[in-house]
Amino acid sequence: MNFPTLSDIQAAHSRIQSFIHRTPILTSSAINEIAGCEIFFKCENFQKVGAFKARGAANAVMKLSPEERAKGVATHSSGNHAAALARAASVAGIPSYIVMPSNAPEIKKKAVKGYGGEIIECEPNLKARETTLDAVVERTGATFIPPYDYLDVIEGQATCALELLEDQPYLDIVMAPVGGGGLLGGTALTAHYLNPEIEVIAGEPAGADDAYRSFHAGHIIPQTGPNTIADGLLTSLGKLNFELIQKYVDDILLANDPQIIEAMRLVYERMKIIIEPSCAVPLAALLANKERFAGKKVGIILSGGNVDLGKLPF
Amino acid sequence: MNFPTLSDIQAAHSRIQSFIHRTPILTSSAINEIAGCEIFFKCENFQKVGAFKARGAANAVMKLSPEERAKGVATHSSGNHAAALARAASVAGIPSYIVMPSNAPEIKKKAVKGYGGEIIECEPNLKARETTLDAVVERTGATFIPPYDYLDVIEGQATCALELLEDQPYLDIVMAPVGGGGLLGGTALTAHYLNPEIEVIAGEPAGADDAYRSFHAGHIIPQTGPNTIADGLLTSLGKLNFELIQKYVDDILLANDPQIIEAMRLVYERMKIIIEPSCAVPLAALLANKERFAGKKVGIILSGGNVDLGKLPF
Repeated sequence: MNFPTLSDIQAAHSRIQSFIHRTPILTSSAINEIAGCEIFFKCENFQKVGAFKARGAANAVMKLSPEERAKGVATHSSGNHAAALARAASVAGIPSYIVMPSNAPEIKKKAVKGYGGEIIECEPNLKARETTLDAVVERTGATFIPPYDYLDVIEGQATCALELLEDQPYLDIVMAPVGGGGLLGGTALTAHYLNPEIEVIAGEPAGADDAYRSFHAGHIIPQTGPNTIADGLLTSLGKLNFELIQKYVDDILLANDPQIIEAMRLVYERMKIIIEPSCAVPLAALLANKERFAGKKVGIILSGGNVDLGKLPF
Repeated sequence: MNFPTLSDIQAAHSRIQSFIHRTPILTSSAINEIAGCEIFFKCENFQKVGAFKARGAANAVMKLSPEERAKGVATHSSGNHAAALARAASVAGIPSYIVMPSNAPEIKKKAVKGYGGEIIECEPNLKARETTLDAVVERTGATFIPPYDYLDVIEGQATCALELLEDQPYLDIVMAPVGGGGLLGGTALTAHYLNPEIEVIAGEPAGADDAYRSFHAGHIIPQTGPNTIADGLLTSLGKLNFELIQKYVDDILLANDPQIIEAMRLVYERMKIIIEPSCAVPLAALLANKERFAGKKVGIILSGGNVDLGKLPF
């Protein structure tokens, strides 16, 4: 597979930068003391739509030809990718069609509608999502933009590590959470190009550990029956993403739900910022493996901040 | 009264800047759209000890003579000033004696102890606090650093608006919450020096509106029976602070508790940052008086982020 080159990723950054935030990097001396290393948090929880997904969606939309644009974009998602794609389409002035399960939370539907996306409801199962999406694409001619297993999306997510390593070039380790693998794959690619010495380590919930098992088995083992509070990381690894992980990711570390909640609470209390549970997984994995990070400079991508404030786990 | 001059405030900033964060200024296009004006949030919730109080305490401690330093500092407080003074003393390598009511929350005591402060417990009433403090000062020779009605503390709090107006000189209005009046007084002084055209407007909880009533009466009316979620703003206005408010504050606007909670939620959801209820009061007051702010550039000091996450009002 021809993965994006460094200049492809840099071009993607130029392409999307007026449509996204250059998010800040925050540090916390209190957390550094607890962790025994120096952590640089890249705050994608402050990103447009509240998550890094704004990058990949914007890049995919902006790369469409004029003919493709005219027909719009489509996806199936009940998460941050749905809102990110609807927003990117809205910014580009083109239609978006979002297939969502009928039981998707009202707040997610509201976000998509707020960006002008057209919601097409379907039964809450993968087969219904896929057949409904096929029908929408057939009817509208829209381009399907998948949430992670798609080169233009991975290229967009790769711009996050580009900013992180521009602002903090001397990192020993970069960490990202892994669900479908779009953010992790893009991060690994950028780190590899800018400094192959940097270790790339993923954090994954123990209750949805398909990437961990696939990484060690050498082939994709799909996720079945995930059970974790990190609801953004329930999905199975994508094919392209797995290829990137095999090539450029050094390790995948697990964290269980109590560890994830503890790390989440630490960020809320010490940094005064809001992150979603999925976003706390790399820090939780680091704190569960402190000796491995002792004295290092570690960049952690805080992936998103979309959480139901009425249902915090503490 | 000889209030600090601009060069006093600038000197205070040089004095404390290696002991505090230069906090970022954040904006939110979503909140701007709701508010109908352009708001620049100065994020003192990210400050050391989680509140602007770190500034005044550091300034007061760093201004002590060597003889005074040797004997340490003392105060009575159950809030952010207690932690801020203990931390400033710890940084300066001197003792601190903090008189706290016996029913103060464990988390507040823990913060003071964590900074090496010595806690002296007393009965939970103002008279006991004052007599206990007198006894501590008598015994130790420590210097009493009051939380707000004290020139060196006001001078320290004034450095917050100095940073805000350095980063965003072209503001039409600056807002701060008012409790004892240390932050508001310091903010008004700095704004007056840097640009007398800037309007300074305070936000105050309707359930603890002594500053509002004092401002309109022309003399201090003490707070009795405050009742509001904004637990950092329950205290009565200080004398020095009232003098500054009379001279340099243009208006005080009220917000009720539902408005405060709504503004707090808006900041959590749209900005993904954690603020305490007191901190949401200026935004709540702005949103309750939108026409007054229409199209203006408004700086709002977000005063602190110390909140019990298990007791959020939503």
